[in-house]
Amino acid sequence: MKTTQILLTERPVGAPTAKTFRMAETELPALKDGEVLLRVIYLSLDPYMRGRMSDARSYAAPVEVGGMMGGGTVCEVIESKNPKHEVGSFVQSMSGWQSHAIADGKDLRKLDPADAPISTSVGVLGMPGLTAYVGLLDIGEPKEGETVVISAASGAVGSVVGQLAKIKGARAVGVAGSPEKVAFVRDELGFDACVSHRSPSLSADLAAACPKGADVYFENVGGATLDAVMPLMNPFGRMPVCGMISLYNATSMDEGPTRARMMRQILTDRLKVQGFIVTDRWNRFPDFIKEVGGYIREGKLKYRESITEGLENAPSAFIGLLQGENFGKQLVRVSPDPTRD
Amino acid sequence: MKTTQILLTERPVGAPTAKTFRMAETELPALKDGEVLLRVIYLSLDPYMRGRMSDARSYAAPVEVGGMMGGGTVCEVIESKNPKHEVGSFVQSMSGWQSHAIADGKDLRKLDPADAPISTSVGVLGMPGLTAYVGLLDIGEPKEGETVVISAASGAVGSVVGQLAKIKGARAVGVAGSPEKVAFVRDELGFDACVSHRSPSLSADLAAACPKGADVYFENVGGATLDAVMPLMNPFGRMPVCGMISLYNATSMDEGPTRARMMRQILTDRLKVQGFIVTDRWNRFPDFIKEVGGYIREGKLKYRESITEGLENAPSAFIGLLQGENFGKQLVRVSPDPTRD
Repeated sequence: MKTTQILLTERPVGAPTAKTFRMAETELPALKDGEVLLRVIYLSLDPYMRGRMSDARSYAAPVEVGGMMGGGTVCEVIESKNPKHEVGSFVQSMSGWQSHAIADGKDLRKLDPADAPISTSVGVLGMPGLTAYVGLLDIGEPKEGETVVISAASGAVGSVVGQLAKIKGARAVGVAGSPEKVAFVRDELGFDACVSHRSPSLSADLAAACPKGADVYFENVGGATLDAVMPLMNPFGRMPVCGMISLYNATSMDEGPTRARMMRQILTDRLKVQGFIVTDRWNRFPDFIKEVGGYIREGKLKYRESITEGLENAPSAFIGLLQGENFGKQLVRVSPDPTRD
Repeated sequence: MKTTQILLTERPVGAPTAKTFRMAETELPALKDGEVLLRVIYLSLDPYMRGRMSDARSYAAPVEVGGMMGGGTVCEVIESKNPKHEVGSFVQSMSGWQSHAIADGKDLRKLDPADAPISTSVGVLGMPGLTAYVGLLDIGEPKEGETVVISAASGAVGSVVGQLAKIKGARAVGVAGSPEKVAFVRDELGFDACVSHRSPSLSADLAAACPKGADVYFENVGGATLDAVMPLMNPFGRMPVCGMISLYNATSMDEGPTRARMMRQILTDRLKVQGFIVTDRWNRFPDFIKEVGGYIREGKLKYRESITEGLENAPSAFIGLLQGENFGKQLVRVSPDPTRD
């Protein structure tokens, strides 16, 4: 049995072109015990694949130059030496950009066409759907009445994010490209509003669509959309960083703007960057005083004070503090301390 | 009874100067029932006060021009019409930059000099200590053997962060300014290493001090220190954003670099920005398929597919996907789907 494959011919600089790929035929070996032969019905195409074409440090190994592009597929079992997988059954596989594949049966997800169209196993009921689900619910944590902004809103991930947000009682505001996509997101998917990132008034359009600001921004793209969202973010907002498609074809990441570099790293390294203000967290005071008070008494934790004498010297001490002239905790002794010395 | 106060004379542009402040005397009214008269012993000076001098949107109201600077204090009760507060007792108050104050007794924290020096109530056992505690433990969540990098390491917050990190079994690496501070952090506070942000080889110094990268960066400063830390961050790193002192005197925030603006907003709005990759989160698949599968069956959640025909067209479909030419989930039909049409 032959399989037709799409191979990577080069590491693209900037956007991939037709020359980045090449088609080839290869003979598949005979099936061994436990293996199945798959006929690929659907190949899933996903933006993350651009990352796999580069050898920059990322969260997964790159495709080798000359190697086959990887990817999720929906397949029919057409020959089987594995009793768990019957000929004629359907499975979800990671068999890549090819027409046929041999699999050992372990990483196959069985599909029942009666449950849902088999194509959904690489879409709304597969990796993109799960991405939307965990990003929105586990990181974004939308609450009833909050506003969730979603970039790439008509896409495989964004379309699920906004609808889940609605189901959870939040207001869903999409950002999409073409007028057709904008209308689809608003009229068919039922988002409360959708604006176009192609509009010269994107910032104003988005602000108008978010009269109470944004509590969650589901980030798929970066760039101008992120610029438009940032001023709308409400205190305690959450920003699941799922994708950065505006940067995937960028050629100058290392020399690029520092925010772009940082956002890309937040994504690839799954960083959590979280602002906090202690006044929101006074509920932790009893635990703190018990634990740290104990360390102080036991001599396990040291501290240092810089004491400036006299209230009249508070301004100069403060000016110095902003320039790092203090050493340890800065205090002003306004009047004598009868407990000391 | 008179109180001497330090008033704000202007909203400083850039760094505050001596002219930003002015001293004045005011007569305090007579005590009413329930009130106490306080003699301020210590005034705490903290970097957050710079924010209060500006009227930019932030997490707390600004000091009025002509008004008294606010701040935490340690005081002795010298007159009392409140049975809960005896004359001669010590309290922690928010009475601001002044020598005496009247308080209604409600917001006072009673201090026992036998527990700890009273000055610590605005330092290691007060707001800065709590800041270190919640930022490191609740957001940074250091694990045994991990590396925690701390900027402003000799300061009121940073010094506690690093020592707590050590107590929790992590490696603590400080960044401080002068040679004296660096030595103090390393030799007296017992951090594993400390480097100077004044060194022209800061990035290399920090990398050498973090042979296994950084798992937590406790961010107090922004700027060059953040630049040096970012390349060292390990996957799943955490970055509690506590302060941004390198920006507090900045005059051009609105036109400034986008990362600086973003970091400032992450801080003031307590945003959580978190990267995630679905492959780390497959454990949520059963919940997802149950919940979202149900929505699909009930018709509550819609999806759209773009299907390109033929494996040979996968490259052009993928190139288009990166340019937003797809509409909904992009699939390639590699061979016929017997379950469809």
